[in-house]
Amino acid sequence: MSSKYKSLKEECYEANMELNALGLVIYTFGNVSAVDRDNAVFAIKPSGVPYETLKPEDIVIMDYDNNVVEGELRPSSDTKTHSYLYKNWANIGGVAHTHAMYSVSWAQAQKDIPIFGTTHADHLTQDIPCAPPMADELIEGNYEHNTGIQILDCFKERNLDYNEVEMVLIGNHGPFAWGKNAAKAVYNTKVLETVAQMAYLTLQINPQAPRLKDSLIKKHYERKHGKNAYYGQ
Amino acid sequence: MSSKYKSLKEECYEANMELNALGLVIYTFGNVSAVDRDNAVFAIKPSGVPYETLKPEDIVIMDYDNNVVEGELRPSSDTKTHSYLYKNWANIGGVAHTHAMYSVSWAQAQKDIPIFGTTHADHLTQDIPCAPPMADELIEGNYEHNTGIQILDCFKERNLDYNEVEMVLIGNHGPFAWGKNAAKAVYNTKVLETVAQMAYLTLQINPQAPRLKDSLIKKHYERKHGKNAYYGQ
Amino acid sequence: MSSKYKSLKEECYEANMELNALGLVIYTFGNVSAVDRDNAVFAIKPSGVPYETLKPEDIVIMDYDNNVVEGELRPSSDTKTHSYLYKNWANIGGVAHTHAMYSVSWAQAQKDIPIFGTTHADHLTQDIPCAPPMADELIEGNYEHNTGIQILDCFKERNLDYNEVEMVLIGNHGPFAWGKNAAKAVYNTKVLETVAQMAYLTLQINPQAPRLKDSLIKKHYERKHGKNAYYGQ
Amino acid sequence: MSSKYKSLKEECYEANMELNALGLVIYTFGNVSAVDRDNAVFAIKPSGVPYETLKPEDIVIMDYDNNVVEGELRPSSDTKTHSYLYKNWANIGGVAHTHAMYSVSWAQAQKDIPIFGTTHADHLTQDIPCAPPMADELIEGNYEHNTGIQILDCFKERNLDYNEVEMVLIGNHGPFAWGKNAAKAVYNTKVLETVAQMAYLTLQINPQAPRLKDSLIKKHYERKHGKNAYYGQ
Repeated sequence: MSSKYKSLKEECYEANMELNALGLVIYTFGNVSAVDRDNAVFAIKPSGVPYETLKPEDIVIMDYDNNVVEGELRPSSDTKTHSYLYKNWANIGGVAHTHAMYSVSWAQAQKDIPIFGTTHADHLTQDIPCAPPMADELIEGNYEHNTGIQILDCFKERNLDYNEVEMVLIGNHGPFAWGKNAAKAVYNTKVLETVAQMAYLTLQINPQAPRLKDSLIKKHYERKHGKNAYYGQ
Repeated sequence: MSSKYKSLKEECYEANMELNALGLVIYTFGNVSAVDRDNAVFAIKPSGVPYETLKPEDIVIMDYDNNVVEGELRPSSDTKTHSYLYKNWANIGGVAHTHAMYSVSWAQAQKDIPIFGTTHADHLTQDIPCAPPMADELIEGNYEHNTGIQILDCFKERNLDYNEVEMVLIGNHGPFAWGKNAAKAVYNTKVLETVAQMAYLTLQINPQAPRLKDSLIKKHYERKHGKNAYYGQ
Repeated sequence: MSSKYKSLKEECYEANMELNALGLVIYTFGNVSAVDRDNAVFAIKPSGVPYETLKPEDIVIMDYDNNVVEGELRPSSDTKTHSYLYKNWANIGGVAHTHAMYSVSWAQAQKDIPIFGTTHADHLTQDIPCAPPMADELIEGNYEHNTGIQILDCFKERNLDYNEVEMVLIGNHGPFAWGKNAAKAVYNTKVLETVAQMAYLTLQINPQAPRLKDSLIKKHYERKHGKNAYYGQ
Repeated sequence: MSSKYKSLKEECYEANMELNALGLVIYTFGNVSAVDRDNAVFAIKPSGVPYETLKPEDIVIMDYDNNVVEGELRPSSDTKTHSYLYKNWANIGGVAHTHAMYSVSWAQAQKDIPIFGTTHADHLTQDIPCAPPMADELIEGNYEHNTGIQILDCFKERNLDYNEVEMVLIGNHGPFAWGKNAAKAVYNTKVLETVAQMAYLTLQINPQAPRLKDSLIKKHYERKHGKNAYYGQ
């Protein structure tokens, strides 16, 4: 594979394969992309190709206006959602979408995932938002593009910062997550799935389980993300 | 193995082994068949043979009237259900039956699986039907043949098209799924099991979770199956 | 290992390792025995030995009065329950005990497992009995011997036949299962665990799920176990 | 690696890797330490290092006052909780902390785990305590040190003995477990996770499930831990 986008394709390929290794997808139910800001392109999984046979050279290079820059295969059917996020959120480097079990179940239940504990607060200080299903005319229109709008509208209405809240549930559909690169988007997808299962079990054990108190949210988030963070190396 | 049905047996064998690899069966709790329309025969797993020891040459070739055409072993005890479906539904190429956990649990609960999200709508536009348990006289009669009738009656009553709805729950028993070939029947069995678990969790999180709205059902189904489908290669 | 019980020890060893391979035990939370009726002895797992290090020669040979016949290690702490069952139930060849997740949960809930479907009826025609916790004076006495009495009392009171119902839950404790040999006892333990999970899920989906009707119980049980059985080879 | 703490580091490394092998952690969500009482130091996992790349020489040696004795990497962010336990509880040799699924869910539900069965009583005679979330001024202060105080306060208020109850839930956070060495702390973490799942399922099956009666608690605990214990070799 000789291509100026070789390493971008490899980053994208590795992240897609990790999604599969972490048990977050079956068959072709997911896709990850990775952006190259200098060249204003992103790499994305081709549509409907099983992980078992996916190769780095199958990865498709797109520009932000959804034109194929390089690649023989058709890109993921969710491509326009990825491009919309890259175009509007300058700081993100990767995007992941799956139909992971617990994340999808909260999305189908049309409920935000309440912040119940420190596993959640280690990653974000907010309930994980569930964007309401979009209006019928938007569904019938440019659907995947409008899914991007649906995400940004949800963040605007709730005054959320995509640099902190790196994940969302699309009502009735499933999760999108992002981060500084494709690997981080996959990491956030796994964290979301884990937190989703914990929140589900918490409410089964105690339907009146209280939201985590503000002092603990702040403490745990700042241990990892504050200016005096002391987690990690 | 020299047989005019060698490749048919191998297709059937591979599909049965895939059922096991996907975690859809324990022991001998499942069977897959594959049809050869030109010769009006189908290949099916022998009864009670564990997957660990199953070999392609163990697969039994049957005609639509349940006569053994080739094979030393007794065919699956569910053979007459498979043959009834092949005889009546000209477009199907494979049939799978399992006792997979979540599918069986919905069947035992005697409930249709409501369409709650796009994972479901990517595959079919209807709730997954649960056929009511059959009348006592039919159970005591030609039971497996009558299970085939039970499935067709259910589809007729609800005006369902087997070309679109490629799966059913038999009340108190478990799932049957089919498709253009045996591999697709296994794929549909895995999709059904996944959707069954998602629907279960959705109702645990929100007992009032709404059915997916028509515009989203239509959009997702047509992305993959409509005349302007743009999913896959 | 030169011993007249070499093959008995190996049967017992293999069955214990299968328990572990099937995910039915963690650490040392389970034990399987195998009987030699001709010599009136049985082989059983030594107490507290992890499966990772267990060897066939570690297996202990006991007589029905709980004397060690051969072996360096102390037998399973549950040995007296096994011996009591062998002494009283002449037809059984193997016994298995575990703390498998769903079986234990039903035992802790002190509920029989209702017969909801054909997966259950393929193996037995009755609800799986949960023996009530034993009286305090029996617990303080010869506890493991009395656990054997507890099982037989439960079967007597409910008029159950151990040749058909090859499994029981001990209230607050967990499952015992048996069969014609040790491998069948392990098989029955896996079936019980599977049926326990299915019944749990069924009631979560539909708390009013009806018991399987008699005609279907009879049909499925007799397909596999009746005099005109046509399941298997 | 030439170090006077080589074997201590290896014990700590092995225990951390076992945590991962047992499915009790994802990513870096856990840490285990091992103490050397003669030298008054303990070995602990470095902060934020993935299990896939962790090496024995990465393990950090600390004294009880949280000074680094040996090691290039920053120790676990939870180090001060470990040191507080070692300082105050003279008999413990290892401590483990995770975000394991069912343990965290009970902690988020802020509920003690009731003793429902013998799996629980084989290990301890008490409900597994859930320490209430700490006061805001303690969270804002020396948080991880205060988590140690939170644990000891909980044990004092309830009159629990850390030699018998080798595990606790921190409300809203997750489990800590300890034991005579690091391997035992990991064992107790796995037992806690298993018992947590069993108790969850038990209450789903029967919300009125009764607590295990005293005679059975005593019998099972003393089989393994009493002066006439007859479990194990």
